[in-house]
Amino acid sequence: MGKLLGDQAADQIIQLIIDNDGKAGDKMPNEYELAEQLNVSRSTVREAIKALVSRNILEIKRGSGTFISEKCGISDDPLGLMFVKNKLKLATDLLEIRFMIEPKIASLAAANATDEEIREIEVLCDKVEQLILNNQPHMDVDIEFHGAIARSSKNIVIANLIPIINKSISLCIDVTDRQLAKETIETHKEVLNCIKSRDINGAYDAMYLHLVYNRRNIKKLIEIKNNETHLDI
Amino acid sequence: MGKLLGDQAADQIIQLIIDNDGKAGDKMPNEYELAEQLNVSRSTVREAIKALVSRNILEIKRGSGTFISEKCGISDDPLGLMFVKNKLKLATDLLEIRFMIEPKIASLAAANATDEEIREIEVLCDKVEQLILNNQPHMDVDIEFHGAIARSSKNIVIANLIPIINKSISLCIDVTDRQLAKETIETHKEVLNCIKSRDINGAYDAMYLHLVYNRRNIKKLIEIKNNETHLDI
Repeated sequence: MGKLLGDQAADQIIQLIIDNDGKAGDKMPNEYELAEQLNVSRSTVREAIKALVSRNILEIKRGSGTFISEKCGISDDPLGLMFVKNKLKLATDLLEIRFMIEPKIASLAAANATDEEIREIEVLCDKVEQLILNNQPHMDVDIEFHGAIARSSKNIVIANLIPIINKSISLCIDVTDRQLAKETIETHKEVLNCIKSRDINGAYDAMYLHLVYNRRNIKKLIEIKNNETHLDI
Repeated sequence: MGKLLGDQAADQIIQLIIDNDGKAGDKMPNEYELAEQLNVSRSTVREAIKALVSRNILEIKRGSGTFISEKCGISDDPLGLMFVKNKLKLATDLLEIRFMIEPKIASLAAANATDEEIREIEVLCDKVEQLILNNQPHMDVDIEFHGAIARSSKNIVIANLIPIINKSISLCIDVTDRQLAKETIETHKEVLNCIKSRDINGAYDAMYLHLVYNRRNIKKLIEIKNNETHLDI
């Protein structure tokens, strides 16, 4: 019974956020105020907040209050891939989706990116290059680079979807293979330059090429893994 | 402090499911057994289970116990679209992703579907037709039809992604417009027949055509909506 009340209160809090045009990072009213606004007990509010925190919709910062989460309600495993055992097959399938989406996105970015967005993509492109040249982990910034391109496509779903896919790939496979360093730097730059010069087909092709290098890399990793398995037997 | 313990226990329960090859619908050990296995208190287990229920990983069936959820941890709003205000723009962007993915998926289904999967697609195709002809809501079965095609592509991510996208579209727009009934029945059949005859390009084209009708329909709805807004002023 308490659970049902908590769920109802959670729905009411979500509606409250929508009605108030809430954005990631906004502070929520405190427990007392919420209980009063929703006309429920404080323990029900607490239960609702806990559930919304589990769902990455709210975030509690100790000592300063409850906030709308930067994760926008996107769970740590939004596509339900946690229980897939074969991580190499998973990485291959995720990359197959990137092939379907990302070249088209690069075209859309070449058509729609604002000057400010292009500057952001350029900064991230440089950062990835520096990290690779300094032998430092570049995966997070790499994901940001592709995310920035996705955002500048102006498709609001793609902007959320691409980081999800890329983070999933980085979780299942070590794609930071040194072999790919040169190709990554070069094809990232090509994508950037085509977006800059509003070259829709060029951006498509450059992104496609970038993915081809990635697919070859994954294939190589799978071959190595298969050979290891054979050796085990 | 309690929260942190609950989170840790939640992670341990997830690991337990992975280690035991847990599948949707499997029954979980009871509270006492879990507390013993994880070496934590029963109240910590209860807290962890609550969080996992909020995350659609577990499901409590009153009187019979706790089970692995059929939702496989996929939240009700996996792509974080809850707070997007402009639902027509959202529907358009979701459909744009279907254009990037679904024709290719239909090709993969034509190449990879088993005979059993083809029979399932056929049954769903017939069901959608019957519902449309009887003037009954067909959206849920329609989503199942596209989901079955996605599964038979053998890309494990696509199988989860397509229902997410299609459910999202049905939430933001009423795509059950009677105008589309004839086109839906026809293009669904074309997709099915091409998958049956292993016609990779035909399946691609038929799915593309299906999406074209959907895009025209959304455009029409947007025009109507825009006209209404003008009248309001």
